[in-house]
Amino acid sequence: MKKKAVVLSSGGIDSTTALAMAKDRGFEIYSLSFRYGQRHSVELACAKKVAAHIGAAAHKIVDIDLRQFGGSALTDDIDVPKHGDVSDIDQEKIPVTYVPARNTIFLSYAMAWAEVLKAKAIFIGVTAVDFSGYPDCRPDFIKAFETMANLATRTGVTGEAVLSIETPLIQMSKSQIISAGHALGVDYSLTISCYDPDEQARSCGNCDSCLHRIKGFKEAKIADPTPYQ
Amino acid sequence: MKKKAVVLSSGGIDSTTALAMAKDRGFEIYSLSFRYGQRHSVELACAKKVAAHIGAAAHKIVDIDLRQFGGSALTDDIDVPKHGDVSDIDQEKIPVTYVPARNTIFLSYAMAWAEVLKAKAIFIGVTAVDFSGYPDCRPDFIKAFETMANLATRTGVTGEAVLSIETPLIQMSKSQIISAGHALGVDYSLTISCYDPDEQARSCGNCDSCLHRIKGFKEAKIADPTPYQ
Repeated sequence: MKKKAVVLSSGGIDSTTALAMAKDRGFEIYSLSFRYGQRHSVELACAKKVAAHIGAAAHKIVDIDLRQFGGSALTDDIDVPKHGDVSDIDQEKIPVTYVPARNTIFLSYAMAWAEVLKAKAIFIGVTAVDFSGYPDCRPDFIKAFETMANLATRTGVTGEAVLSIETPLIQMSKSQIISAGHALGVDYSLTISCYDPDEQARSCGNCDSCLHRIKGFKEAKIADPTPYQ
Repeated sequence: MKKKAVVLSSGGIDSTTALAMAKDRGFEIYSLSFRYGQRHSVELACAKKVAAHIGAAAHKIVDIDLRQFGGSALTDDIDVPKHGDVSDIDQEKIPVTYVPARNTIFLSYAMAWAEVLKAKAIFIGVTAVDFSGYPDCRPDFIKAFETMANLATRTGVTGEAVLSIETPLIQMSKSQIISAGHALGVDYSLTISCYDPDEQARSCGNCDSCLHRIKGFKEAKIADPTPYQ
């Protein structure tokens, strides 16, 4: 029986590359996305296409309502910040697009599914390089989550399996990620990065996420297939 | 300004006592419950009454769909086990009523709310004594969650606050919990423990949870206000 992995998928470059890497490492893929009140829900359509493209065994979308608690430009009526260039982004400051506890909640659901599937791994496409200042993208956090996860489940009691949290992109820049995914045959035209796409799913080209994407393709010397407004 | 605590509330004896203890320690209470496909949803009506009884500043019910992943008698069509007496329960075995990753998911949402509220504590009424074999009720798990939580949030980056996970019942038996809550004026007639209540919200008297409750009141020498079938 093939070993299984739950892979968090947002329809963006990073998680799509993580999906391709998990597949390349021989895992049967269980792709997991979330509808969390994000203003850019076009990403879910991308995540669905990506799961089919990668050949996932299953793709689930879980509804979670983070708007109940507020506190983020991605789920509240706070303006998404726009910048002229990636160098304008303050890397030291936690941005208003940070969603409280988002990765923790995402990983907790992934853990639930992994336990039921008896999956050995959860893949999450976080990076500590272009991490936009999100606290829950740091290696220390991931390691602490893994420790907690192995105590939280049947594993922790019976010792029958060990769950690992895999972060294959953690030390990679956006351009390295794009190059690696490109080598694995990823079709990035299926993905979206923009925090604020228009009704035709075209990217704004000015939010933090678009700026990192544009810079990434440029540095990787790979043509950017993204439609911009 | 009064310090704030998010308290996980299921409408049962343990979480209701934890609410009363948090209140007694001077916290402003933010009560958090979940609609997670549990078959015994009468508990949410109890949680609401309890929040009013304790004087919570707010009570939220978050919808989460754990049925998508399956794997528990509490959310699937698996029979809830019935026993003649509490001594028939195998304390070593993880019961079928275990819901994968439940406490992890609950605590993750509590963490999200705590971050937005700038709350200093999350109270969870787990016990390591009558813990029914659930892995995510053990002290090691709670400690690991606390470590992770402090790395996951703005706290971990800015050092501006420290979140603690409070488990005031962790070393208490059911009868000790009932005695302590009784001393704080808790009205246990507002609570429910049963995994399988009937349509009139009367408890079955035979599931693991009922048996622990009955034994608890008996040992505490306090009249059990629960209506049984």
